[in-house]
Amino acid sequence: MKLLITGGAGFVGARLARTLLKRGTLSGQTIDQIVLADQYAAPADLMADSRVSARTAPLLAQCAELVNDRFDGVFHLASAVSGECEADFELGLRSNLDTTRALLDGLRAAGNTPRLVFSSSVAVFGPDPAHPLPTLVTDDTLPAPQTSYGTHKLMCEYLIADYTRKGYIDGRSARLMTVTVRPGKPNGAASSFFSGIIREPLAGQPSVCPVAPEVSHPVSSPAQTVQGLITVFECSREAFVGRSALNLPALNVTVAEMLAALEAVAGPEVRARVTFERDERIAGIVANWPGGATATRARGLGLLGDTAFADIVRQYIADCRDGGLADTALAGLPPGRG
Amino acid sequence: MKLLITGGAGFVGARLARTLLKRGTLSGQTIDQIVLADQYAAPADLMADSRVSARTAPLLAQCAELVNDRFDGVFHLASAVSGECEADFELGLRSNLDTTRALLDGLRAAGNTPRLVFSSSVAVFGPDPAHPLPTLVTDDTLPAPQTSYGTHKLMCEYLIADYTRKGYIDGRSARLMTVTVRPGKPNGAASSFFSGIIREPLAGQPSVCPVAPEVSHPVSSPAQTVQGLITVFECSREAFVGRSALNLPALNVTVAEMLAALEAVAGPEVRARVTFERDERIAGIVANWPGGATATRARGLGLLGDTAFADIVRQYIADCRDGGLADTALAGLPPGRG
Repeated sequence: MKLLITGGAGFVGARLARTLLKRGTLSGQTIDQIVLADQYAAPADLMADSRVSARTAPLLAQCAELVNDRFDGVFHLASAVSGECEADFELGLRSNLDTTRALLDGLRAAGNTPRLVFSSSVAVFGPDPAHPLPTLVTDDTLPAPQTSYGTHKLMCEYLIADYTRKGYIDGRSARLMTVTVRPGKPNGAASSFFSGIIREPLAGQPSVCPVAPEVSHPVSSPAQTVQGLITVFECSREAFVGRSALNLPALNVTVAEMLAALEAVAGPEVRARVTFERDERIAGIVANWPGGATATRARGLGLLGDTAFADIVRQYIADCRDGGLADTALAGLPPGRG
Repeated sequence: MKLLITGGAGFVGARLARTLLKRGTLSGQTIDQIVLADQYAAPADLMADSRVSARTAPLLAQCAELVNDRFDGVFHLASAVSGECEADFELGLRSNLDTTRALLDGLRAAGNTPRLVFSSSVAVFGPDPAHPLPTLVTDDTLPAPQTSYGTHKLMCEYLIADYTRKGYIDGRSARLMTVTVRPGKPNGAASSFFSGIIREPLAGQPSVCPVAPEVSHPVSSPAQTVQGLITVFECSREAFVGRSALNLPALNVTVAEMLAALEAVAGPEVRARVTFERDERIAGIVANWPGGATATRARGLGLLGDTAFADIVRQYIADCRDGGLADTALAGLPPGRG
């Protein structure tokens, strides 16, 4: 089978590709080909696999050509992040709304009804004077996005449901929780610090947390997030239950609990590298996000998610070691820890 | 003040324009100018008013020029109807999604944050396996549109909320119930028969109802619908409560009750012109609509809606007489009735 991963050079996309290549099959079929579509170059380890090819250009410019492909499956992960969309309204519309529309029209033109998994986001939820936000958002909570990012994700969920209803694609939208711990540098996402406060101290660097320790947030490890995308791809329509979007599993955790887990795994001197300094812009965005989420439909698919933040910290440390990054990414981790 | 009514040559748009011209003011300001944007020519009675001008072209082609206007208020009513959108997927996307996007971008470019009322629809609601439809949909019901029309209306609600959040417009989305009794010929809306089963027998014509008598539906008279749009325009943001869409008031009525009201007002021989013959296409669409709606937020604005379907029949008869249409539109009404 032939798969397309948009945003395939990104963190989640590349990890998904690695996982799929290692499995070798999806929905019981052999994976012959994975195309990574991204504006950035794909990681070298992926390009070294003969099953992988890359299309390196803005996705919007690639979509018209999709009519000439007949992908069996698509993971649509490409997206401008929340902070970028708030800073540049037109970029957000183009990257997150117009591009998804063009992708769907390209797949529709190809005519083979490919299965598509769309990475929506918990950012579709927000407080609204007419609809108070529950303590934990559920699959049934009425979305009220408070960012352009969340608005476009939600609009795309509904667009995908309608293309699916018409039989043009077999689409499923899954709302990702904040993926942490992300490696590398901070990105433009307002949620970037949820990785930074773990990643930077482990690398021996200071990190400034822009929100209060009691802020609670629904997070998910990279491994569980990728597993969620694959399970949503493989499940039947009946198991997915209809066409509306579902929440992927969340570990609902406060910043204080995240830092306590960091200390438990890596020691107090690592934890001590994190200080608090409120950033009004970031804190304002985060205050409009739900403090936690449930995922009843995902649970019905067998997706249980992460159970302890300390495990997520350990997963990150193990990933750095597996990737040969221990010298740099774990430069601040005391010997014998992690 | 200078107002734009998109779909201004349509039934609701033209009635809104007449009502506004008669009032002379909106939000306490004198109405100096009303521009009717429509692909069809505006009615002669409206064009005879010196305050009215028409722009007769597809709205999508007009939007880029909006940067040169500085409208104080916009009523965005232009829309392809549900049946058209089901028959022509691209027409629906272009007319209902792309056009609204272009309108918003044109208004944003003008830079004066005009107030905008968007006519969304009860068609945003539908049954979904994951989210059963309540007997009566409320302002808080999770939408699950089952048509492209409903999908695009819902997407535009969220787009308008985000342009409003960013301060580009002052937008409010109001979900219209099925407006009945519409004059003239049947249109492409799947709900067209809700007018036809009253209008045709009054004109002495037979009418075939494509759904069962026990089908219940939320309807609204033209007068109450127009009042709803004006009230939503005039209310404060605080009174509107946030940025999410609200339901306009509905009279929840079965087909049997509609026909009983017709008989009460116009007599049994008029009622007898309606027969039942199930149309699978229409019945299938209607089966996915809610049987009724509540409108708590609209009620908070003082909008109480219609109270009896017989009054709606009488309003239609009075409108025909006022418009000099009694000879044709009421050709089937026995003397002394109505």
